[in-house]
Amino acid sequence: MLDKFKDECGVFGIKPHPEAANMTYLGLYALQHRGQEAAGIVSSKENKLACVKARGLVSDVFTREQLDRMVGDAAIGHVRYSTAGSNSVENAQPILINCQHGQIAVAHNGNLVNAMQKRRELEKIGSIFNTDSDSEVILHLIAKSRKSNLEEAIVEALSQVEGAFSCVFQTADKLIAVRDPHGFRPLMMGTLDEATVFASETCAFDLLDATFVRELEPGEMFVVNNLGMRTSSKPFEARPMRQCIFEHIYFARPDGFMFGEYTQQYREDLGVMLARESGVDADFVVPVPDSGVSAAVGYARESEIPFAFGLIRNHYVGRTFIEPKQSIRHFGVKIKLNPVRHLFEGKRVILVDDSLVRGTTSRKIVKMVRHAGAKEVHMRISAPPTTHPCYYGIDTPTRRELIASSHSTDEIRRYIGADTLEYISIDGMLQSLRNSDPEHYCKACFTGDYVIPFPAEGGIEV
Amino acid sequence: MLDKFKDECGVFGIKPHPEAANMTYLGLYALQHRGQEAAGIVSSKENKLACVKARGLVSDVFTREQLDRMVGDAAIGHVRYSTAGSNSVENAQPILINCQHGQIAVAHNGNLVNAMQKRRELEKIGSIFNTDSDSEVILHLIAKSRKSNLEEAIVEALSQVEGAFSCVFQTADKLIAVRDPHGFRPLMMGTLDEATVFASETCAFDLLDATFVRELEPGEMFVVNNLGMRTSSKPFEARPMRQCIFEHIYFARPDGFMFGEYTQQYREDLGVMLARESGVDADFVVPVPDSGVSAAVGYARESEIPFAFGLIRNHYVGRTFIEPKQSIRHFGVKIKLNPVRHLFEGKRVILVDDSLVRGTTSRKIVKMVRHAGAKEVHMRISAPPTTHPCYYGIDTPTRRELIASSHSTDEIRRYIGADTLEYISIDGMLQSLRNSDPEHYCKACFTGDYVIPFPAEGGIEV
Amino acid sequence: MLDKFKDECGVFGIKPHPEAANMTYLGLYALQHRGQEAAGIVSSKENKLACVKARGLVSDVFTREQLDRMVGDAAIGHVRYSTAGSNSVENAQPILINCQHGQIAVAHNGNLVNAMQKRRELEKIGSIFNTDSDSEVILHLIAKSRKSNLEEAIVEALSQVEGAFSCVFQTADKLIAVRDPHGFRPLMMGTLDEATVFASETCAFDLLDATFVRELEPGEMFVVNNLGMRTSSKPFEARPMRQCIFEHIYFARPDGFMFGEYTQQYREDLGVMLARESGVDADFVVPVPDSGVSAAVGYARESEIPFAFGLIRNHYVGRTFIEPKQSIRHFGVKIKLNPVRHLFEGKRVILVDDSLVRGTTSRKIVKMVRHAGAKEVHMRISAPPTTHPCYYGIDTPTRRELIASSHSTDEIRRYIGADTLEYISIDGMLQSLRNSDPEHYCKACFTGDYVIPFPAEGGIEV
Amino acid sequence: MLDKFKDECGVFGIKPHPEAANMTYLGLYALQHRGQEAAGIVSSKENKLACVKARGLVSDVFTREQLDRMVGDAAIGHVRYSTAGSNSVENAQPILINCQHGQIAVAHNGNLVNAMQKRRELEKIGSIFNTDSDSEVILHLIAKSRKSNLEEAIVEALSQVEGAFSCVFQTADKLIAVRDPHGFRPLMMGTLDEATVFASETCAFDLLDATFVRELEPGEMFVVNNLGMRTSSKPFEARPMRQCIFEHIYFARPDGFMFGEYTQQYREDLGVMLARESGVDADFVVPVPDSGVSAAVGYARESEIPFAFGLIRNHYVGRTFIEPKQSIRHFGVKIKLNPVRHLFEGKRVILVDDSLVRGTTSRKIVKMVRHAGAKEVHMRISAPPTTHPCYYGIDTPTRRELIASSHSTDEIRRYIGADTLEYISIDGMLQSLRNSDPEHYCKACFTGDYVIPFPAEGGIEV
Repeated sequence: MLDKFKDECGVFGIKPHPEAANMTYLGLYALQHRGQEAAGIVSSKENKLACVKARGLVSDVFTREQLDRMVGDAAIGHVRYSTAGSNSVENAQPILINCQHGQIAVAHNGNLVNAMQKRRELEKIGSIFNTDSDSEVILHLIAKSRKSNLEEAIVEALSQVEGAFSCVFQTADKLIAVRDPHGFRPLMMGTLDEATVFASETCAFDLLDATFVRELEPGEMFVVNNLGMRTSSKPFEARPMRQCIFEHIYFARPDGFMFGEYTQQYREDLGVMLARESGVDADFVVPVPDSGVSAAVGYARESEIPFAFGLIRNHYVGRTFIEPKQSIRHFGVKIKLNPVRHLFEGKRVILVDDSLVRGTTSRKIVKMVRHAGAKEVHMRISAPPTTHPCYYGIDTPTRRELIASSHSTDEIRRYIGADTLEYISIDGMLQSLRNSDPEHYCKACFTGDYVIPFPAEGGIEV
Repeated sequence: MLDKFKDECGVFGIKPHPEAANMTYLGLYALQHRGQEAAGIVSSKENKLACVKARGLVSDVFTREQLDRMVGDAAIGHVRYSTAGSNSVENAQPILINCQHGQIAVAHNGNLVNAMQKRRELEKIGSIFNTDSDSEVILHLIAKSRKSNLEEAIVEALSQVEGAFSCVFQTADKLIAVRDPHGFRPLMMGTLDEATVFASETCAFDLLDATFVRELEPGEMFVVNNLGMRTSSKPFEARPMRQCIFEHIYFARPDGFMFGEYTQQYREDLGVMLARESGVDADFVVPVPDSGVSAAVGYARESEIPFAFGLIRNHYVGRTFIEPKQSIRHFGVKIKLNPVRHLFEGKRVILVDDSLVRGTTSRKIVKMVRHAGAKEVHMRISAPPTTHPCYYGIDTPTRRELIASSHSTDEIRRYIGADTLEYISIDGMLQSLRNSDPEHYCKACFTGDYVIPFPAEGGIEV
Repeated sequence: MLDKFKDECGVFGIKPHPEAANMTYLGLYALQHRGQEAAGIVSSKENKLACVKARGLVSDVFTREQLDRMVGDAAIGHVRYSTAGSNSVENAQPILINCQHGQIAVAHNGNLVNAMQKRRELEKIGSIFNTDSDSEVILHLIAKSRKSNLEEAIVEALSQVEGAFSCVFQTADKLIAVRDPHGFRPLMMGTLDEATVFASETCAFDLLDATFVRELEPGEMFVVNNLGMRTSSKPFEARPMRQCIFEHIYFARPDGFMFGEYTQQYREDLGVMLARESGVDADFVVPVPDSGVSAAVGYARESEIPFAFGLIRNHYVGRTFIEPKQSIRHFGVKIKLNPVRHLFEGKRVILVDDSLVRGTTSRKIVKMVRHAGAKEVHMRISAPPTTHPCYYGIDTPTRRELIASSHSTDEIRRYIGADTLEYISIDGMLQSLRNSDPEHYCKACFTGDYVIPFPAEGGIEV
Repeated sequence: MLDKFKDECGVFGIKPHPEAANMTYLGLYALQHRGQEAAGIVSSKENKLACVKARGLVSDVFTREQLDRMVGDAAIGHVRYSTAGSNSVENAQPILINCQHGQIAVAHNGNLVNAMQKRRELEKIGSIFNTDSDSEVILHLIAKSRKSNLEEAIVEALSQVEGAFSCVFQTADKLIAVRDPHGFRPLMMGTLDEATVFASETCAFDLLDATFVRELEPGEMFVVNNLGMRTSSKPFEARPMRQCIFEHIYFARPDGFMFGEYTQQYREDLGVMLARESGVDADFVVPVPDSGVSAAVGYARESEIPFAFGLIRNHYVGRTFIEPKQSIRHFGVKIKLNPVRHLFEGKRVILVDDSLVRGTTSRKIVKMVRHAGAKEVHMRISAPPTTHPCYYGIDTPTRRELIASSHSTDEIRRYIGADTLEYISIDGMLQSLRNSDPEHYCKACFTGDYVIPFPAEGGIEV
């Protein structure tokens, strides 16, 4: 899939470590696929938390000089996308504030369902908001809390919000990781020498040579204090577990482990299942790179149809691109993909992708492949039709833009111009899980079955 | 005087004008001498206030593209210095917030005496602070106000703070200028076609071809609504007028009019008075550029001793400078000043400067002039000895660093290495005023006579 | 293979086309894999050739404004690497000069064997050199030519140099493409509407919707004049054809066609041949991404051992990277690659790469794979041992650094720590060619059989 | 005068000194007023000369890191303006080349009269030109020289060119300074510890604590070898001395010594003479800052009319300025200058400037002063009418643009809107010289009396 979804966010935290800020930089580097628009690190110098954040990739945002000044033994970090057109850094994270509990910084992955309602309540009693981010609501609720103990204040604050939050907090002397009671978003815990490390995905641990210990459980709060001592608690009311199945299908890096599954293995299994459910005779199985590759490998293996890298990705695609005035066919797609010369000529091809959201990109790819000479084009999607938007942290288009929300598979097939189009079934998707319980997943984007009731239209937008 | 004080701040506002943002850019450009570290403009696009601010000079911070996107008919702007070592833009202004009263932005010149106390009260009831700026306190107090009318909320908020504030507020539909009841800092009002314009100094009007109307009175609030209608009120309890005499002596641009005086004229008069009070025979009167020039012109005229530009300023001094490892005599001063060759050889010279704060720069200049061959060096200062720090908006050093707070004039003379050293007397300074009442000025930095009692040591730092 | 070789260069030219500069920008974009250090375009404005070039990626070097100013109907472009440590743009191309024949610009791919000798001759008669580039020699020889006709001057100049040159020249009114008589480097010709287009690889045509016509023949000169008229000639003495086999194995993009072969097909065939020549039992075939992928696909297909993407590439690797002080195992490789979790545990794996030059990276990868749990690691290389440096345009290390020049395969196996190590045979490599004559290739880097005798040590370095 | 002329160039050289590059940086910093568009330094690392140059101010072009890499004991530097619209660095200096004599770099101040003719001759025998700079001709002639000794080659080369050259050359082991036989442009020599230092003006020595020794004589060549040994010679045919009087009047910094005169003293003397020649009764003498200040001081002193800084310069004028769409009176001038409020109201004012070239800026200033209320405006110019262009290194407008070339003083007076306008006489200008012989100056811009015959129209443009 090519940029159909915006990635969401990645979070990281470490304490105590003599190179906390540099390790956070490395951790964010490994999590870069979760957000390419902005990055930030909070660490401390001279007993004061300080934040460096800016728009851009991790490798562009931070300088050696900045990291060298961040001498504290704890740090948190965040990568995120930024809403289109916004050229301010206001919405970048971590967010760092001063309040009666002292300085607090947070890096938040997920989306709160009742953020707008809470914000309006807070504004009525005189609170000021500086960003459009729902994460700011959490900090206001902490600042308002009369609890003398900061952990209790965080618990009191988070008990008032609904939705997805995998957060890492940093204060003058503590690092606190919390995962919401539904467990929508991942949050991993590891160790590196004396330090405890938190990260959205295990690949961050791999780069650091940290040891993966386990995932935080839904509703768990984990505190690391100044002596490196660790305390775990479950301070929230229990809720049904609802891990995001879409992390498996699309977001997570394939080299990781999450929710009890090995990501690449699961994706290959989806391809295998897809081949079983909707096999078709063809000359080649061709992935839409990069995210369709694992499923295509599984599909090819199961179907015994040769696997071919028929679409080559240009890895130098930059942020801006100067288009010619003259029209070029499939230009937007060509910048990113090019068919392998001669391969498609007169051939029947199965294209495997991991999702189909608006259908516009798939339509361009099918045309490109036909223009390269393909005789038959069979599109296979290793996810079920995306019919409903996500309210828990994935930046799906609105329902109206989700082509499967209002069109049958055959209508979509005609729109994208394929000879056949098949999605994996919801059952097939769930049966492909090897180790985890299908009940423990949120499948709302495929079913519309939202575990948290949400306000009327527009109500959850912050 | 060479960088002895940091400049403080400059504010600007205009409404309604079809090129409000561009006019604000020009206004800030003219006010650049009041703050070179950061600049910002708030204007609106699509009915939403938006802020562009960054570290740097006005000419570097803004792009044509940014100004073109600021299409609203109102705008406010701010130039400021930033505390040493801080490389964030957090403390830049205007500050723009969202609260129950909607969006509010403020550009603030001055310093609040009870900011820290108010901040602690606000934090206790759950407020969050994002900056180290005392200006943020004002916005919190507005956000907290239960007044349904925004002007009333602003009045309620400002009634709770003590100290110096010349502020310009912008909301969705209004531009509001307020000057504190003591009138510490200047705030000028003018008109440009249909628009009302506010600025810290009249030079901003000159560049825009705006017509200067009058200064806001101490305690005055002036509102411009969406139709361009203007309302003036005096909502605060009356206080004794205390305009900052140091604006006249040092900060203000010489081509302006302020507090009833023409700045350059007053500075020349100070030089005349200085010549009368402490005349000395010499071959030349040499100003320390640029701020000592006017007083030196007056001194030379009165004393009938020839005026000479004996110290030449390098106008290309940049923000950073790569020093050699090898020691160079008077290097820090030489980068900025160079004595005119041959002029000083064997001569008796009167150096005229507008202030002497720490004494370190004067010491280097006297040495440089002696090294150039001067036989006698007589230092004359067109201000009285600076013995007390300012708590109302001028970034003076702490009392300990003010050499005159703990040393006699003769001790200072020996320290800087001059043959004689004389300051203007406080009486002389006040008698030189042509149009305004000496009683209406704050002279606390020379007398220690603070009109507002302030908390114990450290208490007013925010 | 991960950065074992530096890419060399890519060239592009187009005439006549109303958007010549923008098309050149697109063409360079498609050729970016051939050089990431610097890029340049020459076009004309107001009848004068002008050059924009700088260090960096194509997407960073050029702005819309610059391209818009390049209004001429012809343009040439170049992408290249820059020698380590050089932070100047002097060596970037195209090179644009003024001489008795007017303005001439050249974009050159390849390396001249007698450049240093020619340079010394030219210097002796008073020529000035501004770069370290051998391409500058060509321009001097043209400037020296007494031929009144520019094509003849180019022929005269190129007749005096030995080695590899695929060049595109631009003058006030002509576009001239030339390929050296041995045909070391590729040069493709296509058409786009009225325009003739030249490019190092066909992928540039794909992006532009240009039609690929044919490769320039070795020794061919092709001229496009101001009316768009085309003339081909073969002005040089015939030489044996020596196309670079390494373009097939490593440099060229897999989606292209070159020297009569489809690149990806050939690489898969090399994998097939490798499996036949040196099959070994294992659980997985894992490519070293990205360049080992095609051969691994072929190897897996032939051996019927499952293909697995066991090493995941981080696509966000930036130009600079801030390393921690703390040592991290395999850090240099980990920034780029991460093994897929769980896949290798207790497994026998075949790693397929396209070359092994110094051995240092392979050694790190083998260690990383073993650390991930692999029981057996079998390394297979889809090229023969690289024993000799290239003097015709590929930036191989010196002979001493080529591990295969002084070590047996078994010694290398021990060095990299693999259980087995096998290269494809030279025969196998040649037999895998489907359409082209093995005799027509330069295999000097594998055989030491250089078609052009070259000066003693150091002699060809420029 | 406000930007009426572009400054020309400044050169610097030092050897042997352990911080040669950093000292050159400082020297260029002091010479910044001679060229603000581009700056460059050549020094050596690892026995190879290397050049860093770019567009921009000295403080922007160089980084600490770059200077630290320049470890050689010799360096030369250059500041220059760049022709309008050119955004390339090609014309920046020093120019560094390789040739049969090895590496040679040059920093050149001045303009060659026969550069185009020489260039055409060189092109005819096959030379390549990379810049539009006449300085490149010098390097070609050196490269062509058959002399085995480099000094002799330089002499041979410079003997073939006509015009102005104050040059500093750097080679692998020598620093060579040369001044043309007419001595048009200045070139100063000093010492700093063991090092010999060359600079266009003495202010560079002041900043470095170097000791000024003397000016190079016209036609002198001064060589510093690797041991620091110095050799002076006069290898050129003697010519009449023709030092540029305009350096005194406008270009040079006022704190320096040049051609036997103290610059500020001479300018004050011009003001004194101007007051004698064309006195007029008035209330104030007001300089046009900054260059008119010294003459105004002299004028005021002689006439006993009070001196007033009536026009205040904005020192923060940046390179770019975002203009409003709405017209603002005298906008271009207002950005730079603002009249002092109240000063001009009903007053008679004498404006003193150092030159009047096109008249457009003077016209705007007179209007601005009248708009500020002046009753009478008397313009006095401390130079004679500029009637002829300079061919020896000062970037005057073409003759047609020089208003005095085709208009009487009274016509110019009417054009600029002054009540009276007077220039100093040529005699007055020459009589004001205290130490130097009027015969030794080039006054061609005032007289049209060119010492070197030059080709027909257009012929000397390169």
